[in-house]
Amino acid sequence: MASRTEIDSMGPVEVPADRLWGAQTQRSLEHFDIGRDTFVWGRPMIQAFGVLKKAAAQANSELGQLDADVAALIARASDEVIGGELDEHFPLVVFQTGSGTQTNMNANEVIANRANTLAGRPLPAKSPVHPNDHVNRGQSSNDTFPTAMHVAIVTELNERLYPSIGRLRATLAAKADDFADVVMVGRTHLQDATPVTLGQVIGSWVAQLDFAASGLHAADQRARSLAIGGTAVGTGLNAHPEFGRRTAALISAETGLAFTQAVNLFAALSAHDSLVEVSAGLRTLAVALMKIANDVRWYASGPRTGIGELTIPENEPGSSIMPGKVNPTQSEAVTMVATRVFGNDATVAFAGSQGNFQLNVFKPVMAHAVLESIRLLSDAARSFNDHCAVGIEPNRERIAEHLASDLMLVTALNPRIGYDAAASIAKRAQADGLTLRDAAVASGLVTPDQFDAWVVPLEMTRPASD
Amino acid sequence: MASRTEIDSMGPVEVPADRLWGAQTQRSLEHFDIGRDTFVWGRPMIQAFGVLKKAAAQANSELGQLDADVAALIARASDEVIGGELDEHFPLVVFQTGSGTQTNMNANEVIANRANTLAGRPLPAKSPVHPNDHVNRGQSSNDTFPTAMHVAIVTELNERLYPSIGRLRATLAAKADDFADVVMVGRTHLQDATPVTLGQVIGSWVAQLDFAASGLHAADQRARSLAIGGTAVGTGLNAHPEFGRRTAALISAETGLAFTQAVNLFAALSAHDSLVEVSAGLRTLAVALMKIANDVRWYASGPRTGIGELTIPENEPGSSIMPGKVNPTQSEAVTMVATRVFGNDATVAFAGSQGNFQLNVFKPVMAHAVLESIRLLSDAARSFNDHCAVGIEPNRERIAEHLASDLMLVTALNPRIGYDAAASIAKRAQADGLTLRDAAVASGLVTPDQFDAWVVPLEMTRPASD
Amino acid sequence: MASRTEIDSMGPVEVPADRLWGAQTQRSLEHFDIGRDTFVWGRPMIQAFGVLKKAAAQANSELGQLDADVAALIARASDEVIGGELDEHFPLVVFQTGSGTQTNMNANEVIANRANTLAGRPLPAKSPVHPNDHVNRGQSSNDTFPTAMHVAIVTELNERLYPSIGRLRATLAAKADDFADVVMVGRTHLQDATPVTLGQVIGSWVAQLDFAASGLHAADQRARSLAIGGTAVGTGLNAHPEFGRRTAALISAETGLAFTQAVNLFAALSAHDSLVEVSAGLRTLAVALMKIANDVRWYASGPRTGIGELTIPENEPGSSIMPGKVNPTQSEAVTMVATRVFGNDATVAFAGSQGNFQLNVFKPVMAHAVLESIRLLSDAARSFNDHCAVGIEPNRERIAEHLASDLMLVTALNPRIGYDAAASIAKRAQADGLTLRDAAVASGLVTPDQFDAWVVPLEMTRPASD
Amino acid sequence: MASRTEIDSMGPVEVPADRLWGAQTQRSLEHFDIGRDTFVWGRPMIQAFGVLKKAAAQANSELGQLDADVAALIARASDEVIGGELDEHFPLVVFQTGSGTQTNMNANEVIANRANTLAGRPLPAKSPVHPNDHVNRGQSSNDTFPTAMHVAIVTELNERLYPSIGRLRATLAAKADDFADVVMVGRTHLQDATPVTLGQVIGSWVAQLDFAASGLHAADQRARSLAIGGTAVGTGLNAHPEFGRRTAALISAETGLAFTQAVNLFAALSAHDSLVEVSAGLRTLAVALMKIANDVRWYASGPRTGIGELTIPENEPGSSIMPGKVNPTQSEAVTMVATRVFGNDATVAFAGSQGNFQLNVFKPVMAHAVLESIRLLSDAARSFNDHCAVGIEPNRERIAEHLASDLMLVTALNPRIGYDAAASIAKRAQADGLTLRDAAVASGLVTPDQFDAWVVPLEMTRPASD
Repeated sequence: MASRTEIDSMGPVEVPADRLWGAQTQRSLEHFDIGRDTFVWGRPMIQAFGVLKKAAAQANSELGQLDADVAALIARASDEVIGGELDEHFPLVVFQTGSGTQTNMNANEVIANRANTLAGRPLPAKSPVHPNDHVNRGQSSNDTFPTAMHVAIVTELNERLYPSIGRLRATLAAKADDFADVVMVGRTHLQDATPVTLGQVIGSWVAQLDFAASGLHAADQRARSLAIGGTAVGTGLNAHPEFGRRTAALISAETGLAFTQAVNLFAALSAHDSLVEVSAGLRTLAVALMKIANDVRWYASGPRTGIGELTIPENEPGSSIMPGKVNPTQSEAVTMVATRVFGNDATVAFAGSQGNFQLNVFKPVMAHAVLESIRLLSDAARSFNDHCAVGIEPNRERIAEHLASDLMLVTALNPRIGYDAAASIAKRAQADGLTLRDAAVASGLVTPDQFDAWVVPLEMTRPASD
Repeated sequence: MASRTEIDSMGPVEVPADRLWGAQTQRSLEHFDIGRDTFVWGRPMIQAFGVLKKAAAQANSELGQLDADVAALIARASDEVIGGELDEHFPLVVFQTGSGTQTNMNANEVIANRANTLAGRPLPAKSPVHPNDHVNRGQSSNDTFPTAMHVAIVTELNERLYPSIGRLRATLAAKADDFADVVMVGRTHLQDATPVTLGQVIGSWVAQLDFAASGLHAADQRARSLAIGGTAVGTGLNAHPEFGRRTAALISAETGLAFTQAVNLFAALSAHDSLVEVSAGLRTLAVALMKIANDVRWYASGPRTGIGELTIPENEPGSSIMPGKVNPTQSEAVTMVATRVFGNDATVAFAGSQGNFQLNVFKPVMAHAVLESIRLLSDAARSFNDHCAVGIEPNRERIAEHLASDLMLVTALNPRIGYDAAASIAKRAQADGLTLRDAAVASGLVTPDQFDAWVVPLEMTRPASD
Repeated sequence: MASRTEIDSMGPVEVPADRLWGAQTQRSLEHFDIGRDTFVWGRPMIQAFGVLKKAAAQANSELGQLDADVAALIARASDEVIGGELDEHFPLVVFQTGSGTQTNMNANEVIANRANTLAGRPLPAKSPVHPNDHVNRGQSSNDTFPTAMHVAIVTELNERLYPSIGRLRATLAAKADDFADVVMVGRTHLQDATPVTLGQVIGSWVAQLDFAASGLHAADQRARSLAIGGTAVGTGLNAHPEFGRRTAALISAETGLAFTQAVNLFAALSAHDSLVEVSAGLRTLAVALMKIANDVRWYASGPRTGIGELTIPENEPGSSIMPGKVNPTQSEAVTMVATRVFGNDATVAFAGSQGNFQLNVFKPVMAHAVLESIRLLSDAARSFNDHCAVGIEPNRERIAEHLASDLMLVTALNPRIGYDAAASIAKRAQADGLTLRDAAVASGLVTPDQFDAWVVPLEMTRPASD
Repeated sequence: MASRTEIDSMGPVEVPADRLWGAQTQRSLEHFDIGRDTFVWGRPMIQAFGVLKKAAAQANSELGQLDADVAALIARASDEVIGGELDEHFPLVVFQTGSGTQTNMNANEVIANRANTLAGRPLPAKSPVHPNDHVNRGQSSNDTFPTAMHVAIVTELNERLYPSIGRLRATLAAKADDFADVVMVGRTHLQDATPVTLGQVIGSWVAQLDFAASGLHAADQRARSLAIGGTAVGTGLNAHPEFGRRTAALISAETGLAFTQAVNLFAALSAHDSLVEVSAGLRTLAVALMKIANDVRWYASGPRTGIGELTIPENEPGSSIMPGKVNPTQSEAVTMVATRVFGNDATVAFAGSQGNFQLNVFKPVMAHAVLESIRLLSDAARSFNDHCAVGIEPNRERIAEHLASDLMLVTALNPRIGYDAAASIAKRAQADGLTLRDAAVASGLVTPDQFDAWVVPLEMTRPASD
């Protein structure tokens, strides 16, 4: 394979001729062959570095720290990075130096080399654009990498997760409206309880999604504080005093999402508590989705010997051995994703606690795990929406049959005859296999007419707030 | 042991004569002997139930659901519960029914029995005050238990945690001011880096505490939504429509903390995502404290062969075998607490994901774990403040000596002679055991005067925002 | 309160006159007020320290390192510690120095003071028995604390956990035998599947318990390696070369459990991977119990609109509002314990990863979490056994009714008519609300006689190994 | 894109003409677009399915359940799957049905289609080889998927992890030998303690690796029990009674690893506690590697103001802004991997606890997480070995300088002058900035000659077992 010789402060390195990266990327490639199949950085981080490097060049240019021509070349190359045209030149994996230095240098080198190419220089070339002195000007990996990870995560939240969750939320809210009149057995402790409507059931799922989304929005806002301008240790050494603020503003303009420079740049390098918080928000969403997906599959259990009160779409044959079997596979995918998000969150919190002095060197694994959780939750919510939630329907016949047999309707008698008398009626009905009505009348405490007037399932479902 | 016979819907039970609880508490005592040494509910939950039952009685009275006399008796008994006078009558443990029904009934029974005693009735007595029909009126365990756990947790956050963290924050902020002029080696990747001030270092700890506190305040606000009024399944069956809102208002008046009724009562019973969020906020605080405590013990490592740039109070002999040894024991207690808070958080999130239908039956373990984390973080922060943070002092001599030897001061030369030339100077100094100044001058790229003018550690610490 | 003055290497300290502890215990008491309500060390660790100090004194005496009289006094005092007579003299909490030094000194001081008292000396006295020079002779906290934690954990496993799990296992194995002939619907994906016997169902629970127990026994064996003899850093400085081995042998004699000295004492101080392993074994047991408890409560769900195939004991009224309700409360306690054990395990593994150089300073939190998990699992298994498992009974009527309606009996036709034809029969039965038999006959592919000959649920449950 | 029409029990589906999969794979592809970038199954699971399907065909043939010709065709196609020639025909992701049915069907379909192609039949064709009736004969996804996951995991442990860990272990063991004479400051609580040799330090790392490996070997042995023969629910319906055992034997022959059929097939389908155990074993290894990697980077900290007692290879420029900086990047990659393995383990244990009735439907996420942990640990250990461990060297000058200043050498005086007197010497040395020797002599308790005779660092490192 053809190669060219790239040089860094440690000396020369051979690089594939058709790749734009430089010496430091190549060194990382050779020294960190860890999980290469699945842990090469994907689009979100590459795009975020493109956005950052473009904004940094422009800010430096505006502040007189970089020639306009050099800045323009960097911006053109960065646009290609943003657009995904240079993804194959970002070969590094997550498990590298804990500051993400090598991925920062990968961006610096690719952008510099591409810029030099655009300027008509054959590679290797460090002029007119130098990866450290120009592309990385006023920056350190210690501030650029966390900046890029925040930009990537906030972007993914906004462009991928919120729309996906929003769609599922809309589907469920519509279902809650549609089924507001379907009165069914309530269940607590997995045991028959007083009635609810299906609208109320699904409405509680919507409320959980809203709560999770609201928590994520708050974490998202706090994650929009960027480390840029802190350079090596937070002091901003070698950066223009306005550089961080201006770069953040330019990133905002480029992404359409409002970022600012972090108030405390030392904390922004040495701790990533904001990512721990975002991860926790994603976990709360996973908690909500797990409850929802579990409810769906239990309500749809059966078809004959389970609860069977909901039907869901049949998307595929359920079994390789049991003919005609239909399984709640979308629910299962969602609950599996939830367990994975829990795991990612454990990784993020653990890593987040391990900073020392002026740097936390678990940045890449934190960024990756948060981005993976966002991706999985987004995809799973969309899949669950499109292939399951949209098709949820009540099995009205079965629901009615169950409701008719629900002994806990007896609760409506509490205010009439007292808890203890009501309890004796329910116990007798269960012991003797009677309907609740028959047991109530047999008790002599309630007449048939009274029972019919007092025990009205639909009325039992009217929330206290009505 | 003398006993009396109490009765519930399942029949008679013998109860110790000198205890105010009733049949259901006794049944739980006999059926749930799990972790009794350390898992009996403590003050926060008992007090919260007192607050709740008092407010509920008053609300019911105002709404015409309860005789004023009965309500007044309940309020008097509840005040004793609030005040801690009846703690020995709350013998149940966390690991019981997952709805906390038995602890709700414990409160109902003790308050009823105490009220009846106040009314001059010998026990057993269910009149004038009945545990279910009066003390529990318009309520179910399914809404009272989560209400009590939210009240307990929000109270503990406000009365215990915030003051403790606030005190530590104040100590550290003052230290950051005091040591704003102490220039020291910065460290990234555990390696010598460009300088920072000790004020900046400690200021980053303050920033982490502020971030964590801010997240907790947000979670606290969201945890002030109470399930009360939802009764058995969220519909509010058997409760007056105004009962929940009014009870929440009365709880607010009693505690001085603003609570409201939850908007969606179905979600408030079947999911406790709000506690998952509070727990995550506590975990973020643990992450911050772990970073701080680790930094303190590493900066204080030595005394002779570690970093040794900080000194901390010597509180006790450090070793049973090594005479004169002093250890960073307060840091160690804090970091151990952090690992415990992580564990509690794992419990809370797992439990929070396991709701089914109209109820999550992991309420007690969730409430307990959150309360334990609050308690431990509060105590640990106070202990760390009082016995360590207040006594942190710089070892100025050692700091200066280290700073003088820091090769990364070379970074200040980047804008003057370029990254590559600067790198060669640093490498030569390290290889040949030279001071940076000598190596710089020897390189011929910098004169002694230039070096002294360009490499000024204090100036290197001025943040970009200056 | 009356006090006496105790002295250590830092000077004098006032100690309550009626307590046997000395200066260092008192210092810890004052400096570590963290979670005092529930985190004071309990019996297992205190007893283990008694066992250890007795064995150490005897070993030192045998090796000529300690006068026989002094050793005898230490042994007498230690016996009181072992017997629980001196528990009130062990006031320290888990969150202290991370080496457990203060609890080691607590033991040294109490035993020395008690020994001196037995020798007729009024306190304060460091003669004839000195806490460091005699009780701690040849020891350091760094080897005694991990020794005590291993002794405590192995003892609790053997004396508390195994019997409790064993009893539950025996109950379930007997139930599996009893119900070997009860053919019921199998369920996969919560959907009706081919039949199983209740004996097989319960037998799978027994198999899970056996697997977990077997893993715990292996971890238990590996935890019997003791750090004793390593003293401060693993080198055994100041201990007789035979001291560790001999002490381990004497501990074995005292406890009836075979302990040995660890092969690598450096690892035994600086890492507690063996506790991480024990904790993981406890987590696997929690996994098994969660599956079992969940199955029980789902099989018992209803009574009318759930699965309802098992009945379980009714131990208490289930609801404070719904009369006559019965809930699977023992299952709920078990599943809550499982979430707690998961949390404890997260604590242990995190803490276990945080050692530095020659010491891991998370010893107390690790020991405590493992002991808590053992206690909770033991208690929960016993409670679940006594109040639930022993009373599990099949609802044969409902089981038969469900089985008759199970469409997946169609699977028995696969070898006769092929998967695709069988699938069409099942689908038709479900779509048209037919019995499987009617749908099969209607398909023209099977005669009634063939159906009855080929579709025999009991025969479908015979395992391949028959 | 050209397509052909494939049919399953739900009807026809269009499949890309150049792909060998069938209708069910295509349905899954369309319904489960979740994390496609990184969660498509990789080699280990595909290979394991190839091994399994080949063995199953052969076993069925030997037992008279399958024509020899059909079995031979299946074996030929399976060999291509094993060899990796058909990987592009396995497009499905982890997040699908929780039984892995779709990946089992993917294997059935690809093997059937490839077999039919080998038989000269143009696709679509279900003859001579049918995916369900022949490739899946005597099988269900419920037993094949867990069988394949165990085969994949055990294979990866043996072929990937053990060699990688073994190499690192060998490197470290050799270093321990090489540096057996390097006496250095021991450190406990991050504080100077009594001396150790570097050989002892590194030897403790080796001991941790050995402990972890030993735990993994035990878990590996227990994971060699296969679910095969259980079919749909564990009863083995539609499988020949000898099928499971024989298939396990054939898998052993194919892989060279000894597998057997699980004793309890019901547990083998409904619980994956064995994977929870393997995952815990991997976590223990991560704990060990974290300790080792942390020790390495702390010992190598500096170069001038840290501990600096070890040097490690300089593989790449450490900083994009600080010239000449060298960072412990391999250690950082290892510690990041450790946090990821912790996260994966949390996923596995959570998922493992969520089985219901006769099936755990979190199989794919469990298998994937375990395989990912194995891969990452293997790669990280190899990388750390090749690029860091092999180059670890003591900085003998600095080690000697540190040792000379270590006040805890005073411990050697305990047996001579008592703990309290020794403590006063150490305290005075520290307070007055004296050497220990000078302070000892100044105390009047020790003569210079005595000091030199009694305080001999090398002798202080001789373990008690000598």
